[in-house]
Amino acid sequence: MSGTTVQTSVSTLHKDLGLPTDEHAGSEPTPNGLSMVVFSGDLDKVLAAMIIANGAAAMDLPVSVFFTFWGLNILRKGGPIHVQGKKTTTEKMFGSMMPRGPEHLHISKMNMAGLGTRMIKKEMAKKHVMSLAQLIASAQEQGVRFIACTMSMDLMGIHKEELIDGITYANVGTFIDAADKSRMTLFI
Amino acid sequence: MSGTTVQTSVSTLHKDLGLPTDEHAGSEPTPNGLSMVVFSGDLDKVLAAMIIANGAAAMDLPVSVFFTFWGLNILRKGGPIHVQGKKTTTEKMFGSMMPRGPEHLHISKMNMAGLGTRMIKKEMAKKHVMSLAQLIASAQEQGVRFIACTMSMDLMGIHKEELIDGITYANVGTFIDAADKSRMTLFI
Amino acid sequence: MSGTTVQTSVSTLHKDLGLPTDEHAGSEPTPNGLSMVVFSGDLDKVLAAMIIANGAAAMDLPVSVFFTFWGLNILRKGGPIHVQGKKTTTEKMFGSMMPRGPEHLHISKMNMAGLGTRMIKKEMAKKHVMSLAQLIASAQEQGVRFIACTMSMDLMGIHKEELIDGITYANVGTFIDAADKSRMTLFI
Repeated sequence: MSGTTVQTSVSTLHKDLGLPTDEHAGSEPTPNGLSMVVFSGDLDKVLAAMIIANGAAAMDLPVSVFFTFWGLNILRKGGPIHVQGKKTTTEKMFGSMMPRGPEHLHISKMNMAGLGTRMIKKEMAKKHVMSLAQLIASAQEQGVRFIACTMSMDLMGIHKEELIDGITYANVGTFIDAADKSRMTLFI
Repeated sequence: MSGTTVQTSVSTLHKDLGLPTDEHAGSEPTPNGLSMVVFSGDLDKVLAAMIIANGAAAMDLPVSVFFTFWGLNILRKGGPIHVQGKKTTTEKMFGSMMPRGPEHLHISKMNMAGLGTRMIKKEMAKKHVMSLAQLIASAQEQGVRFIACTMSMDLMGIHKEELIDGITYANVGTFIDAADKSRMTLFI
Repeated sequence: MSGTTVQTSVSTLHKDLGLPTDEHAGSEPTPNGLSMVVFSGDLDKVLAAMIIANGAAAMDLPVSVFFTFWGLNILRKGGPIHVQGKKTTTEKMFGSMMPRGPEHLHISKMNMAGLGTRMIKKEMAKKHVMSLAQLIASAQEQGVRFIACTMSMDLMGIHKEELIDGITYANVGTFIDAADKSRMTLFI
């Protein structure tokens, strides 16, 4: 922020003094906002990620979330989806063993065969904490950019039609580019 | 840093030249220091977090640590605490199942029913590495700001009187605000 | 970046106007590049770390990776190594129980007694994703700085001759110093 303002002052000053304005400097913005990798597919970690993303977006910061590895499961639609092109046996197995969407994640500790997860969800509802599905919708509404890692999709055999709408498909370079323009970077 | 210095130069220059000084620019400091989320309650991860926090504080950097989810357990006092107001059955269960303070955490790998944790602690003592409790005390003495996530406290039914002294109570916005002013951000 | 350019403009301006140039400001570089802690020894997390490191290096950004705790295992040479100086029984036990190098790591989820790990590796080879060992070699070739945490080495009884060549040995201060000069910081 201060850099931009300084740049403006200097530009104005240059103009006032009839000196050439440095056009290049304005094109490199001061880092701003939040970029995060969501690698985990654990309910508790993803909840934390989405609460941070929504909070930053509510504070008018640009937010990019890069979903990779187990994190991709958060973007999956519920139920088996008919895909174009064949899946290999391994890909089918990955697809059926991994959780399909936010409703099917488990917490990373005290899951106790699903009991802990059910208890946490019940407490969240009772205490008016938004569910993961609601947090995801809210983030998208607030303009948080969701990026699905295409390399992970290829590795796990996940097709575009299996993921929710309104997301971008890109590789790690896109995350690094966003992170390099962000003040805050997190790996979750 | 360089931004601030530039600002000073520009301000001085503006005064030298009798041009208006941009008062606003100076009020937005260059990002500095470290902000971290401690989400994990695993002994090994929290040790790493506290070693980084102490190191940064020793290098005179401002440090904020936001304890959320399982990370809250690090701030719990040992033993059951009598709290004002009733706890629900679920809250009591969470309270009794989760570790009460730094002495009761386990390592995330090779715990082997507590044996691995005991061995690591023994090695730490033998090799004069500070214990987690000592690292926490040292961080607080060095001015590291500890923030307990009030949303997690509410969710898990943890009351203020159950947590150690000298900490701040706030929500995710406070973390984002601190992180947005920090050069380094970590999620642990 | 913009800060540096602004500084240049101001310096030029100061010279144009015959005002003193602020020498100090130029000596504090604008944060740039990526610094990450690799704490985890899980194959999937370390793969993500190395893909990000290689990507950032390919984009000509300076990258530092600080390997600590379980992350140290990635730097271990395969097979038992004869070390100078004796190891204690505990150190020998740690050494034999922890994985020796990138070929011996397991994924953090769906490992299924090694079956999941073998399946992921097979899919990676089939889909021409570089193996972890190849990613490590590529990162080193691209000039990524690998730092082994000496405090963790001491704690776990790992000796320098047990780790791969071309790495730096340092403590957390070196990481913080690198991170404080980096735009992106991650804990993996």
